Amino acid sequence: MGGDHGPESTIPASLDRLRENPNLQLILVGNEQILVPLLEQALIDFKGRLSIQHASQCVAMDESPSKALRNKKDSSMRVAINLVRDGQADACVSAGNTGALMATAKFVLKMIPGIDRPAIISSMPSIFGHTHVLDLGANVDSSAESLFQFAVMGAEVVKALENISDPKVGLLNIGEEETKGNEQVKAAAKLLESSDLNYIGYVEGNSLNAGDEKVDLIVCDGFVGNIALKSIEGAAKMITSVLKESFGKNLLTKVAALISYPVLNTIKNRIDPRLHNGASFLGLKGLVIKSHGGADALAFKTAIHLAEVEVEKNVIQKISEQVEHALSRRESA
Amino acid sequence: MGGDHGPESTIPASLDRLRENPNLQLILVGNEQILVPLLEQALIDFKGRLSIQHASQCVAMDESPSKALRNKKDSSMRVAINLVRDGQADACVSAGNTGALMATAKFVLKMIPGIDRPAIISSMPSIFGHTHVLDLGANVDSSAESLFQFAVMGAEVVKALENISDPKVGLLNIGEEETKGNEQVKAAAKLLESSDLNYIGYVEGNSLNAGDEKVDLIVCDGFVGNIALKSIEGAAKMITSVLKESFGKNLLTKVAALISYPVLNTIKNRIDPRLHNGASFLGLKGLVIKSHGGADALAFKTAIHLAEVEVEKNVIQKISEQVEHALSRRESA
Repeated sequence: MGGDHGPESTIPASLDRLRENPNLQLILVGNEQILVPLLEQALIDFKGRLSIQHASQCVAMDESPSKALRNKKDSSMRVAINLVRDGQADACVSAGNTGALMATAKFVLKMIPGIDRPAIISSMPSIFGHTHVLDLGANVDSSAESLFQFAVMGAEVVKALENISDPKVGLLNIGEEETKGNEQVKAAAKLLESSDLNYIGYVEGNSLNAGDEKVDLIVCDGFVGNIALKSIEGAAKMITSVLKESFGKNLLTKVAALISYPVLNTIKNRIDPRLHNGASFLGLKGLVIKSHGGADALAFKTAIHLAEVEVEKNVIQKISEQVEHALSRRESA
Repeated sequence: MGGDHGPESTIPASLDRLRENPNLQLILVGNEQILVPLLEQALIDFKGRLSIQHASQCVAMDESPSKALRNKKDSSMRVAINLVRDGQADACVSAGNTGALMATAKFVLKMIPGIDRPAIISSMPSIFGHTHVLDLGANVDSSAESLFQFAVMGAEVVKALENISDPKVGLLNIGEEETKGNEQVKAAAKLLESSDLNYIGYVEGNSLNAGDEKVDLIVCDGFVGNIALKSIEGAAKMITSVLKESFGKNLLTKVAALISYPVLNTIKNRIDPRLHNGASFLGLKGLVIKSHGGADALAFKTAIHLAEVEVEKNVIQKISEQVEHALSRRESA
């Protein structure tokens, strides 16, 4: 039900994924009076793989997380997360209110022992493919210990999604020299240096999109990560807007646009944020994927696919194991 | 002498500005054995307006600020800043090592009374023109009081450069709601709300390039500002790289590029970072402008021009007055 487009995006995306992955089973959670009429044919076509779980309430995009948690006990996001807790679903995918989704997930699923705070991870397009980044906004003022835990958890996501065994981990900072940065970052660097992780040192903001191939995972505080992410969105929006304006100026530029269309389309596909949609909440005893609120069907499909891969690769279980390993390793040191 | 290109950029830029502004006088500070042969004709053409000040040393781009301060007492940047302190120059423009330039400027020029820490301000291209942002990396872990002081100082720069009387000031945060953000940002918001400034509230990362017209000056901690700036640089680099690659792919795409050249050129001019080059150090008793280290002649020229405008508008004097006003206003409250 969530996001700016609701079932308009989520339903076509769901049906597409059911078509593409014959092993996928989906439970669509929401108001059945709205969903049933939209799914009549699909419930027949995907019998046994598609079902509806009724939820009478819906969390508004601007609702405060605490109010949603208190007053919306039958919201679509709460019911979907309950399904994960009860083992009836392997993951929950939502385009709804981020704060409410995080608060509900934390309350219902509980934290993995040893993890202080949950974090949000996503991938970003880059010159060499993409880079994974966390935290993107679950926390502000993260301690060095939290940053270290983010790295341990994020590394498991990167291993699963990229099929690599030893992802290169960088710490986001304002310079590559040892003396740079704030106290938390400097202390986190020490923890990472003495860990099992493949820690490569500090990286700067330009590594997010234009870094060399040296880094697979970038770790930062959620305040910094969220502002970097939004800054990049703003820069991309500005460039797109200038492109559109310049190519739409007059007849000549419009002809140029027509001729360049295949090229401009390739470019769009390379950096299309919809193909990177889906952020995973880490640190919880269950998998929750947040889709961008403005996701269209293609973008929401990407988020569902992300959930499928993380379930298949057993990411939550692996995170629990690695966290336990990292903590016991430190205790015995 | 500084920057990646040294006199190759700084000299043509200087001569261009001397040609364009008949009221401008420039003292080029550096090794005269290098500079004199390059300037023989120029010293005649701009007699009375162009001179050389010898400096026997040069701070390396990767030299530590403390070492530069201790060991390079006759470096070009130190000598240039001395000229400002002694009233022989109204401003110093350098493409050298940022940390060393800041440390030297702070040591030689001293701080304006009432200002705790210096800050770096620059403008960024945006959909609606440009936005001014500070701090871009002089500080980490800025207190609420520092953020407030940045706003007071930044507002004077915006007034001078944009010819507006009451610039709209926003505080960079991870959401626009009151409850969002870290402790420093929330406390800074309270200080700004009760000030004389035209404070408009929180803005998010996308406001840097793609904000609506509601904000003229964005205030943030230097850690956050530097990472946002570098993230934007990375995003722009990725998009440029994908553009080049896609248009250069084969004969057809190359023809498309040729036809689209005027359009692509317009776009480049709109968002060319060289036309936004030049960051001002604020909080010091003298004007120092930092050019990007990679600046070519066009970019360095922009930085010189920035210095001219800030001198003409008496920005340093106005900052001192406003800081005094803001402090006495608070004391009497």
